Amino acid sequence: MTRWALLLEYDGTNFVGWQRQDSGISIQEVLEAAATNLTGGERVACTTAGRTDSGVHAMGQVVHLDLPDRYDARRVRDALNYHMKPHPIVIVRAAIVAPDWNARFGAIHRAYRYLILNRRARPALMANRVWHVAAPLDSDAMRRAARHLLGRHDFTSFRAAACQAKSPIRTLERLDVDRDGDLITLSVEARSFLHHQVRNFAGTLRLVGDGSWSEDRIPAVLAALDRSAAGPTAPAAGLSLVSVRYPEDPFQ
Amino acid sequence: MTRWALLLEYDGTNFVGWQRQDSGISIQEVLEAAATNLTGGERVACTTAGRTDSGVHAMGQVVHLDLPDRYDARRVRDALNYHMKPHPIVIVRAAIVAPDWNARFGAIHRAYRYLILNRRARPALMANRVWHVAAPLDSDAMRRAARHLLGRHDFTSFRAAACQAKSPIRTLERLDVDRDGDLITLSVEARSFLHHQVRNFAGTLRLVGDGSWSEDRIPAVLAALDRSAAGPTAPAAGLSLVSVRYPEDPFQ
Repeated sequence: MTRWALLLEYDGTNFVGWQRQDSGISIQEVLEAAATNLTGGERVACTTAGRTDSGVHAMGQVVHLDLPDRYDARRVRDALNYHMKPHPIVIVRAAIVAPDWNARFGAIHRAYRYLILNRRARPALMANRVWHVAAPLDSDAMRRAARHLLGRHDFTSFRAAACQAKSPIRTLERLDVDRDGDLITLSVEARSFLHHQVRNFAGTLRLVGDGSWSEDRIPAVLAALDRSAAGPTAPAAGLSLVSVRYPEDPFQ
Repeated sequence: MTRWALLLEYDGTNFVGWQRQDSGISIQEVLEAAATNLTGGERVACTTAGRTDSGVHAMGQVVHLDLPDRYDARRVRDALNYHMKPHPIVIVRAAIVAPDWNARFGAIHRAYRYLILNRRARPALMANRVWHVAAPLDSDAMRRAARHLLGRHDFTSFRAAACQAKSPIRTLERLDVDRDGDLITLSVEARSFLHHQVRNFAGTLRLVGDGSWSEDRIPAVLAALDRSAAGPTAPAAGLSLVSVRYPEDPFQ
């Protein structure tokens, strides 16, 4: 067998998320079915760098799977893309990696983007791609508040109850807040994240942005080590997995 | 009556275009129906800065219409947006203008964007927003070819047969070609355009990009004054109307 790394793009709107569930179609299921189609019936299992939730998008998801030795990169990419039609999931690149290469455990950096459309009018062109917040948000205050979250912390206050990580300690490398007209972009980077961590950041920063909370409240929210101390979980639609990094780029 | 200028955003995918047609739903029809709903039954007609084709999008379309004197800007915007639900058409801003202000004839500058997704994999996140071209395109050659189109020319070779403009002469102020990874953006600006002019530019530059045509062929294409001398019309999905300018910005 040959191990392949795949770079995936998908529109998560109509999926139950990465992981198989009884309640609907998952990204994993579509990809594994396509791989089984390619091999002509062999069951194929794949492992992802990040199990995105229902409604979350990706332009740079990374996955690995094992296929019989007979394919080249072009065929793996094009055949899997053919079999995944018409689902909005595509493989942008495919590359052979070492047999012990692991998309999940080998990853050393993940970048997410969270988009807020901040205007009265609901989204038209960006429907299902943004969190629509009609109340005016002070993005400068959000930016200052975000600085308190940078670095190594116990992020229990921003962690979903369902989170399976052993430790709530993470090192947040980047949390930028930028405004371009009506669009506010949160750019968030770390080696790894807790479940719902980025969406909980977004939901909390929004409370600072609309003036409900002072930006100075964030250190106390962190220190509380209590999920109920932070803001609500922001909607999935605004979130995208932008990129995953490895010690060596498998697609170079 | 009060004349209103409206700034519109829409996803043109499932519409027959701006203008009313028997074959399906138009942007104009949805907006005029919403306005009639707002006034409580009076028939309202609106005039647009640019009659976009089926599948063409807008983030900065401008329209004018006349409404009874009793509304303020917030009500016009919010009520029309309410009545246009669930169509992906929204009014981002509404402003009172002079009774003789005209969205079409008053416009002095229009900016369009044409997006080409240049990779093997079909679009997932940008479905219906790009022209998917799988063959590798040389965006530098496209950029050099585009320079021949700048300035004042008789653009008959790039004009749709159905074009109703009196003169085929236009002054092209900008035609930039930029690549960011797999995405090629054409940024096109002029006081006004002929029917299909931007899509015909895109279809022609693609032939230069894939090496079918030399970049030096463009002057001869222009000089031919013959639609069949230029490339095919590129798909509507890649095109968006970005902005329309007036001597004074009505939304300021």
